Amino acid sequence: MLIYFLDMFGTAIFAASGVLMAGRLRMDPFGVVVLASVTAIGGGTIRDMALGATPVFWIHDTNYLWVIFITCIITMLATQRPRRMPRYFLPVADAIGLAVFVAIGVEKSLRYGASPLVAVIMGVITGCGGGVIRDVLGREVPMIFRTEVYATACIIGGVVHTLSLSLGVLPSMAAIMGIITTLSIRLAAIRWNLSLPTFALRN
Amino acid sequence: MLIYFLDMFGTAIFAASGVLMAGRLRMDPFGVVVLASVTAIGGGTIRDMALGATPVFWIHDTNYLWVIFITCIITMLATQRPRRMPRYFLPVADAIGLAVFVAIGVEKSLRYGASPLVAVIMGVITGCGGGVIRDVLGREVPMIFRTEVYATACIIGGVVHTLSLSLGVLPSMAAIMGIITTLSIRLAAIRWNLSLPTFALRN
Amino acid sequence: MLIYFLDMFGTAIFAASGVLMAGRLRMDPFGVVVLASVTAIGGGTIRDMALGATPVFWIHDTNYLWVIFITCIITMLATQRPRRMPRYFLPVADAIGLAVFVAIGVEKSLRYGASPLVAVIMGVITGCGGGVIRDVLGREVPMIFRTEVYATACIIGGVVHTLSLSLGVLPSMAAIMGIITTLSIRLAAIRWNLSLPTFALRN
Repeated sequence: MLIYFLDMFGTAIFAASGVLMAGRLRMDPFGVVVLASVTAIGGGTIRDMALGATPVFWIHDTNYLWVIFITCIITMLATQRPRRMPRYFLPVADAIGLAVFVAIGVEKSLRYGASPLVAVIMGVITGCGGGVIRDVLGREVPMIFRTEVYATACIIGGVVHTLSLSLGVLPSMAAIMGIITTLSIRLAAIRWNLSLPTFALRN
Repeated sequence: MLIYFLDMFGTAIFAASGVLMAGRLRMDPFGVVVLASVTAIGGGTIRDMALGATPVFWIHDTNYLWVIFITCIITMLATQRPRRMPRYFLPVADAIGLAVFVAIGVEKSLRYGASPLVAVIMGVITGCGGGVIRDVLGREVPMIFRTEVYATACIIGGVVHTLSLSLGVLPSMAAIMGIITTLSIRLAAIRWNLSLPTFALRN
Repeated sequence: MLIYFLDMFGTAIFAASGVLMAGRLRMDPFGVVVLASVTAIGGGTIRDMALGATPVFWIHDTNYLWVIFITCIITMLATQRPRRMPRYFLPVADAIGLAVFVAIGVEKSLRYGASPLVAVIMGVITGCGGGVIRDVLGREVPMIFRTEVYATACIIGGVVHTLSLSLGVLPSMAAIMGIITTLSIRLAAIRWNLSLPTFALRN
């Protein structure tokens, strides 16, 4: 129940991030809906295909699609009023959606019998997959590769989530701990421009 | 039966559009076949994976693959004769393939128990998916985003198809009505350079 | 057993090729793991999704994931020592991984009841799919399109593999014959810069 509400919340946030990119690309309204949908449900769709959890989640439950459509309309209307968006709005919204989706991916994968290691990977796919497809379609370097501490935050959040479960923490509490972990790391990275040392070839 | 013939026809047309792009990229014959195949069966493959209709359609029925191979050979030979292609040839061929594939996607999704909303989305995926993959691989902005009234035509065609069915129209007649709708909108858009007002961020 | 060992070997080689590209892109360690994983298991994941062999192979058998992680660490450490990489190292490593993965894809598809034609295509997808995703994410023209005799080598290797089987050759021997064929063609193409005549539009 809590998980379901958070899933809808993350779907709306990711759809909005897709709408905002579509606005930068000056797309028509139906193109906006396509890019918003791909961003919001792309990661979970890859996860479900890989798990064999088909038909994938949004075929069973069309609430996801309605949330995306309504988010598209609200976001398009809201951005037409001439006012400045706060500077951190986009990255922070992205961080919230990311944290929630990682937890959803971990939870669903464990429910389908995946090992903790696989569940963490599925969490990363659920969180980052939609954004990667959005960026590839918009011909940008995927945010997961150009943004510091992005995949890193997802992996650590997923590990906290699965570790908490194996230590006997209640499922919804473990999910919230995972979400807070992923979100905190991303917000800290955004605020203080954190980055890990990068790996570069010497030759 | 009619649906099956139209499916083969759309497969050939989409394969040819892949061959023509491969020709612009100066690829070798086997690369041509790869790009033609991805364009022709990519959208339907994503649809079948999402529906859980696996093994996907071209594993069951290799006629699709033979149609692609033969189309590759014919298209490569035909384009070697020094004559001008009519200016509208590529966009019109693309429009016909698009219209047919949307109808195929709607029809198959409903057969697998999808709701009308999901069926329309699967129609869009079937019609646009292969072309999106083709364009991403060829490093172009996907036609669905750079061409006006593209996703729009698919969505309206899919809605006409599912609405007709729910009003009691015979399946093959409903499919043809959907095809004619998608095709007419695309042809009108190509002929008169129609476009919807675009959405752009103001900030 | 032999097939399984070769699969792990190919996984390590492809993961290393992903690490080396991540090094050119100056990614952080977790980004390196993501790109290495996508390169190593991307092709097989698409194959399993299309075959309906879900959950996909690396969910069942996490050895693949451990091989990737260990390869990432070893490759990152090894490349920090200031020495020149031999000029042919990358293309030759890629050729070995390619040849092995084509054989794995052919073998698994036949095991799932695919026809020889489909098995060859699945071999190409298994061999080339991960590299295509790696190149799309790294915003390079996919190696399969910019490198001569690449898809060609996979197709011929797959045909030799399936033809040998239909002539009664033992499965592991047929796999090795396919591997040697793909590898020889790629190595010859690298050494002598072989290429097929390309197809170009005349209009």
